[in-house]
Order: sequence, then structure tokens, then C-alpha cells
Amino acid sequence: MEDQKTLLQAFNQTTYQLAGHSKRDIRQLQLVFQELDGDLQADVYGTGAVIENFQHKMAKYLGKESAVFFPSGTMAQQIAMRIWSEEKGINRVAYHPLCHLEIHEEEGLRKLHGIDAVLLADKHRVIALDDVLGMTEEISCLLLELPQREIGGQLPSYEELQAISRHCKEKGIRLHLDGARLLEILPYYQKTAEEVCALFDSVYISMYKGVGGIAGAILAGDETFTKEAVIWKRRHGGDLISLYPYILTAEANFEARKGKFGEYYEQAKDLAGRYNQCHGVTTIPAVPVSNMFHVHVRLPKERFEQILLSICEETGVGISHYARKVDEHSSYYEVSIGDRYANVPAEKLASVFQVLDQKLREACQE
Amino acid sequence: MEDQKTLLQAFNQTTYQLAGHSKRDIRQLQLVFQELDGDLQADVYGTGAVIENFQHKMAKYLGKESAVFFPSGTMAQQIAMRIWSEEKGINRVAYHPLCHLEIHEEEGLRKLHGIDAVLLADKHRVIALDDVLGMTEEISCLLLELPQREIGGQLPSYEELQAISRHCKEKGIRLHLDGARLLEILPYYQKTAEEVCALFDSVYISMYKGVGGIAGAILAGDETFTKEAVIWKRRHGGDLISLYPYILTAEANFEARKGKFGEYYEQAKDLAGRYNQCHGVTTIPAVPVSNMFHVHVRLPKERFEQILLSICEETGVGISHYARKVDEHSSYYEVSIGDRYANVPAEKLASVFQVLDQKLREACQE
Repeated sequence: MEDQKTLLQAFNQTTYQLAGHSKRDIRQLQLVFQELDGDLQADVYGTGAVIENFQHKMAKYLGKESAVFFPSGTMAQQIAMRIWSEEKGINRVAYHPLCHLEIHEEEGLRKLHGIDAVLLADKHRVIALDDVLGMTEEISCLLLELPQREIGGQLPSYEELQAISRHCKEKGIRLHLDGARLLEILPYYQKTAEEVCALFDSVYISMYKGVGGIAGAILAGDETFTKEAVIWKRRHGGDLISLYPYILTAEANFEARKGKFGEYYEQAKDLAGRYNQCHGVTTIPAVPVSNMFHVHVRLPKERFEQILLSICEETGVGISHYARKVDEHSSYYEVSIGDRYANVPAEKLASVFQVLDQKLREACQE
Repeated sequence: MEDQKTLLQAFNQTTYQLAGHSKRDIRQLQLVFQELDGDLQADVYGTGAVIENFQHKMAKYLGKESAVFFPSGTMAQQIAMRIWSEEKGINRVAYHPLCHLEIHEEEGLRKLHGIDAVLLADKHRVIALDDVLGMTEEISCLLLELPQREIGGQLPSYEELQAISRHCKEKGIRLHLDGARLLEILPYYQKTAEEVCALFDSVYISMYKGVGGIAGAILAGDETFTKEAVIWKRRHGGDLISLYPYILTAEANFEARKGKFGEYYEQAKDLAGRYNQCHGVTTIPAVPVSNMFHVHVRLPKERFEQILLSICEETGVGISHYARKVDEHSSYYEVSIGDRYANVPAEKLASVFQVLDQKLREACQE
């Protein structure tokens, strides 16, 4: 008896996929390294051309004095919170209830740094100036995640952002940007990275996600800040003897993709539009403000996964390799547009959404 | 006018080098990855065959229930100290004054984990049972570094080690092995990794150094311990989305070199013997107990570096690419035998040491 195929297996066998850049296999690294000169010297504990040149490049791109390459954003952001908290002598920061530090880091900020967090806004919307004005506790730093990933990649208006920045400056509150997906928001704001980062004291940007590297992060700010960050990187065990496998793949992918985020944004709006025309589907946001959005469907997770699997098999197009439960009656998944979307033929795309709509209509009548 | 050539530049232009495996360039990664199937799936946040299989292999090799791959030993060891400190409710551990945690980690243990350290023994010898018996403070964990790198790679006798292990077990003190260079000591002790590790509750081993990978570390112990270590790895920002660039190079180099440490050990004794016959030179230890030792010379650093440079140029053999100051009158460097030593022709080696001896005699008469 044959085992039942899982959605992930079916997805991996499709010809086209609607989201992401590519499979997560080691070819990604091989392709970058086969183009490089083998004599290129490894970085050694944060020194050497490989790391220094890339840090300079990213500092310039972000409009900051200085930048440090980190193995992870988790490490980079906790360290930013620690530096600002020590500067002010207040071990309290503020961020969104669905901030990465709150839900994905096993309380690292508290258990390693002794820093507590005030949660601003509620789980369904982004932080607004009124939330900041309404805080009763004193904080050293406010962290804003742009876009707010866990709610489909929502953004405040640029004017709201400017107002929050002005307020923090006046009140002596450091403003930190969780810009894991910073490049992804520039087309919507119609701003350069430098313009957005100018509103913040410190900035983190991920080297995978939209950029499409293997792992790694950049933390940028003024030199006083990054000098301290380098010491904290050593303390955290992040000052590896060599980080070049991540740096060189980050740089190659950054160069290849930095000009493509406008295209991803347009494609995200197109794709979200197609979803929203399907029975029982809504996207959050309704109109994307970056390359990402969430697809919510009024079907239980298991039922929806059956449909996703059958679409893989019938059309050769992978819509999503998973669905997550919202409640007994509904489920969702995340979409981040990458290189793959442009490869899907227009007629294929149209027919996939016809099939999806049809299947959802049938399922909702069951 | 031509700039004066530095010792490092001259060293990098030599045909043969006495220490190490190879240059630190990116070819090391290229060579491993060009042999691998591009379809191999990346590890994702600590899951997937690439990371799980290697962890199983290393756990078995070390004779422990479970092992976790870390980006760095700094992170792995601080976490081991934290787990044992929380278990006992005592935020104090003990180690050697030249322990990596004491001198290379910017006080990470105290500043991230709030753990203080008792320094045992003095800077010139390894920790003995008497040092442990003489402690007045209660500790959660004793860390032993084998070999003690900063003093030339010295070791206690195996009987001393067993006695310390027995004492710790009786007193409820956890014993942790800083086995950054664990493979390097097995030939001297004539023990398997499993036998040495059985004396310890937790073990760290480096994936570069003797193994010759790019970076990374293994932390091993029982399952209760490693389950906690995985959570702390997330907190530290060490749970990267993919660690495969380090894991796959670690595994390839581990397989290629795990049988070669007996040879390195014999070569280290041979090489140290040659040094000790030179004028004004002593090695620490006098007879190596691993693949490493320190070379001490009764000449100021600058004068000794001139000699090292001239030997590079006259013989085409690189003895060391640096020297460090001990005091106004003497200097030293570290030697770790690796793959390179076997490539040096016997007559070349003999002539280099004749030249070195001659130059040192002349210099000492200046």
C-alpha cells in the first residue's frame, strides 16, 4: 500500500510555484561559489576585505555610518536593545505583540539581557503614534517592524512613521528598525533605504528572506553603536572565525535582487487580486504594501490542504506547501513573492485560479 | 621606494609551511561543495537530514546521548555553563585563568548569563585535583580545557583527570570538557573520544582547529541537557535558518582527518625536538602531548620576526607568520601541526633548522 502523498511532497513535485525564489537546497551556495576566485581570503574574526567591504557597502546603502554583519537577526536585534538599554540605564523596550523577539526567540531578551518589553498596539494592526503617546512606562527603545510580518506584512503610513520618529527623538527614545524585509517596503513608500533608515537610530536587515541569501543579517547605526555591537557579537558567540559562506552569498544575492523589489510588489498586488476573487478567500492586507500578504480561507486547515494538494497534482502549480489553523473553520498561509512568480505562464496562472475558485465553491457547499 | 615586506607577506609566498592545514581561503569550501549533490536539502532551523545526521554521528563518536551543532564554541560553552548553573541554582563555575571564556569572550558569561568564575591553578600549569579540593566557594560546574591551549597545549595525566572526575561526581559538581582540540589529545592518552568524554557531563568540540572545517562546534551530553541547549541556542541567535555551509565542511573534514591525529602528534614531537636543539629556543611543553606546542625564543619580538622573515626568503619555508612579545627580551609563537608538515621534504626541514640555529646564535651575540 502506497503512503499518502503529503502536501509538501506534492508541492515539491510541481513545475511552477507562486511564492519564493527557489528550493532550499545547497545549489544556492554552489552557484555563488563556483563563480568566485578560490584565492579569495577568508575573513578572520570580523576582519578582512570580505567582511569589511560588504559592511561598508551596506552602511552606505542604508545611509548609516557603520554596519556589522551578524550570523542572525535574533542576535543583532537583542544586541541593539541591550546597547540602547544600557545607554539610558532603563532595561525596558517597546514593540508589537507579534514582534520576532516576543514570539520566536524563547524569551532571549529577558533571559540573556534582563530586558522587559512593553507590548504596543494589538495583534491585528500596526503600532500607531497614539500607542506610543499612550505608554505609561519609560522605555529606552521602540522597535518597529516594517512590514509587520505576522499580520501579512502591514505598514503604517509614511507620515505616521515620521511622526513616531519625531516623537521618539523629542522624548529621548531610541528608534530601532526591524527591517528584516526593508527592501520589500521601499516600492510602496517610494523611498530609498537611506531615507527610511534616517528615521531610525539603528537598523537591522536580513540577508535571506527577500534578498535570498542563506542566512545572516546586517546591523547598522552610528560608529559608537556598531563598535559596541561588535563587542556584544563576540559575547553572544556570533564573532565566528569566518562568516564568508553567508557574506558572499548575501552579497551576490543582494546585488542580483536589489533592483527587483518593485517588480515583486507589483506581482504581489496582482496575485492578491486573483486570490480575492476566489470564493471564501480574503488576503491581509487586502491590497499588499510589499511583496507579501496572508491568504485566509474559510475552510478548516485539513480540508484546505486537500485542495492545495489536488491543485498541485492537477495543474502542476504549487500554491502553498502548507496551511495553518486560524480556528475550527478557517486557515491561512503566507505568500512572499520572489523570483518564481515571473516564471509562471499567464494562462497557467489564470487556469489555476479558476480551479482554486471552483474547488473552494464546492468545498464550502459540503 | 618599495614598501618593506612584512613577515606575513613573506610567509604567504613560501613553498612549504611547518604548521596548519592550508591557507584560509575560500577554496576550502569550494572543494567540499563541488563534490556534493546540488539537490541536497538545506537544514531549516535545526531540522533536516544534514544537521540531524551529523549530530547523531558526533553524539555516537563522543559516546553521548545527544549532540547539537553550534555556530561557535563561545556560544556552546556559555550555554553549557548556564544550563548547569540553573540546574544547581548556583551562578558560579570554575576554570583556568587562561580559559577561553576568561580571556577571549569579552565577559560574555557574566554579562549575558550573570555567571561568575573561580579561577583555578595559575597561568603556567594545568588544573590539578588539589586545586579543586582547595576551592572554598561552591560551584555548579568545573570546566577543563584539554589541552590547555594558551600554555602550549599542556595536559594533566589521565589518572589526575579520572580523580577530578570522581571528585566532581561525588560532590555534585558538573564537569564540562572544553575539547576544542579533543581529537588532538587522544593519541597521547591512548583513549577513544568516548572514553575521555565519559569522564564529563558535557563536551564541546570545535569543527575547525584540528578538524579543519570553516567554523562551528558540537555540544554533547545527555538528552535533557541538549534539549535545553537547543532552546538556549535559539535565545543566543545561534539557531540560524541554515547552518549547512559549516556542517557539510565540518563533516567532510572530520571524515578526512579523524584518523590523522596520531600522525600529527608524532610530527609535533619531531618538530619540537628540532626546535629544542636550536640556540636559545625552548618549547612548551618540552615534549608535546598533542599536535601543538609553543616556541619560546630569547630574542625580542621584532628581532625574532626579522629572522623568521629572512628564513622565509632564503629557504622558501615558512616557520611562523608572527611572533608575540613575552617581555623585552623574549618572544613566542604557537605551532599546531596539520596537513602541511608531511609535505616538507626531509632535507629541506633539516636545512631550515640549521639556518634557524645559525641565525639565532648570531643574533644572541649581537
